[in-house]
Amino acid sequence: MKLIRYGNLGQEKIGVQIEAKYYDLSAFGGDYNEQFFGGDGIEKLKAFINEHQSELKEIPANSRIGAPIARPSKIVCIGLNYLDHANETGAAIPAEPIIFFKSTTSIVGPFDDIMLPKDSEKTDWEVEFGVVIGKTARYIEEAEALDHVAGYVLINDVSEREFQLERGGTWDKGKGCDTFAPMGPYLVTKEEMPDISNVGLWLSVNGTMYQNGNTKNLIFSVPQLIAYVSKFMTLLPGDVISTGTPAGVGLGFKPPIYLKAGDVVELGADGLGVAKQTVVPFAK
Amino acid sequence: MKLIRYGNLGQEKIGVQIEAKYYDLSAFGGDYNEQFFGGDGIEKLKAFINEHQSELKEIPANSRIGAPIARPSKIVCIGLNYLDHANETGAAIPAEPIIFFKSTTSIVGPFDDIMLPKDSEKTDWEVEFGVVIGKTARYIEEAEALDHVAGYVLINDVSEREFQLERGGTWDKGKGCDTFAPMGPYLVTKEEMPDISNVGLWLSVNGTMYQNGNTKNLIFSVPQLIAYVSKFMTLLPGDVISTGTPAGVGLGFKPPIYLKAGDVVELGADGLGVAKQTVVPFAK
Repeated sequence: MKLIRYGNLGQEKIGVQIEAKYYDLSAFGGDYNEQFFGGDGIEKLKAFINEHQSELKEIPANSRIGAPIARPSKIVCIGLNYLDHANETGAAIPAEPIIFFKSTTSIVGPFDDIMLPKDSEKTDWEVEFGVVIGKTARYIEEAEALDHVAGYVLINDVSEREFQLERGGTWDKGKGCDTFAPMGPYLVTKEEMPDISNVGLWLSVNGTMYQNGNTKNLIFSVPQLIAYVSKFMTLLPGDVISTGTPAGVGLGFKPPIYLKAGDVVELGADGLGVAKQTVVPFAK
Repeated sequence: MKLIRYGNLGQEKIGVQIEAKYYDLSAFGGDYNEQFFGGDGIEKLKAFINEHQSELKEIPANSRIGAPIARPSKIVCIGLNYLDHANETGAAIPAEPIIFFKSTTSIVGPFDDIMLPKDSEKTDWEVEFGVVIGKTARYIEEAEALDHVAGYVLINDVSEREFQLERGGTWDKGKGCDTFAPMGPYLVTKEEMPDISNVGLWLSVNGTMYQNGNTKNLIFSVPQLIAYVSKFMTLLPGDVISTGTPAGVGLGFKPPIYLKAGDVVELGADGLGVAKQTVVPFAK
């Protein structure tokens, strides 16, 4: 299944994408959140759709598409997890996964605007393969990690490099600004992507392709990451792990290339769909 | 008012402490969460208590006291924010606040056990003055910062120093383990603490006093911190800022002193009450 959410930011209703059409599932009740994923919601939703297939209504035309999950307890991000990206930033290859957080207030929909933070001059892009947790994960082993996955989602891990790298302390400062976590267009449930070890992902700005990577080049695989993170914090149903970005971010160019108002960012991944965001100036 | 929550972890009911007694407020409905703080909940609760004062029931004897707020969207922590603590860790004095996150899955009650993570040898304590946000804060100025505060809470920012400092990446890895954020005993609402610039806070282990600080020695004040953080991420009602720890953490001793199973940690702050946690071994 491809789960979607639609409607105004913060008031999204749930739905499903079937072929190229979006259908409303409000009648199912609830949201795509901890209760849903932790309560066997995907299986129940499948049964609901089968039972009501003929009655499903398309969502209103021109609806805004939101992030396909409700606000999770956390977005755990993995840093420098592609060899080519670690090299382009001049950073050492990590001996074990680098963990940081994105504030969950940064989540927006896949076609929403990316707003430049006030006084930002170094806002950058990062296409990422996101994992949505389906079952509480605490000190789990790699071999059982995928049992704890609900599905996968496309993420743009938007990053302000000055805030991240030049303002003291940890990376978190440059990762959680409003609109810095566009997610979607949909969450694809796990069974539709049996092989996640060979997923192409790309990102362009104003039509120029900058990132063109593949999860086969992940330094730490998805199962390794889930098991690793679960030893430092409990992952709840609906939590997201964003697994890192391949080479081609703006920071990696000489001189660096950063986003400016009016830029159009498009990104996609095999099986995860395509998203498109326009960069807009800061507005309070 | 002194807001409390009681009952089993994850199923807490709301209440209030009046003098030395705890009263149930379940009849008010809801929880001490984003909706409560953002929806003028404190004023409504005050009116409710005034109206029902004679009918209030004490909570059941021997109830577990939980953290006084429901799971917030984030716990933002400030690093090295006391001069004496920055010195004891050997770190440079920060030019601007250091920000990191604690996973919200680490929240427990003020008298709950602190569980050592698996294979942990460097679990440490940090008494902190916590600020609970009452109104959404986004790009606010220092002068208006306290308008966005609901109240204050005592926090033990338990930290695994090997995970934090020796495992690559950011500090977040050593800060969000289960049970690493005991909060409470209560949230004291803002009007009961008109002066937060001179609050003593202390922590002992097995009766030996290790930390004995005062918010007058904060490098960055509470209003400065709220304004600063609000420029990097939106703070929601119920969100927590933990403002840093004074000198006297285990890491600062030569040789360092870390927590072991059976240790008893007691901590307190002027106006914020006293908490007590027993350290227990890892259990899956």
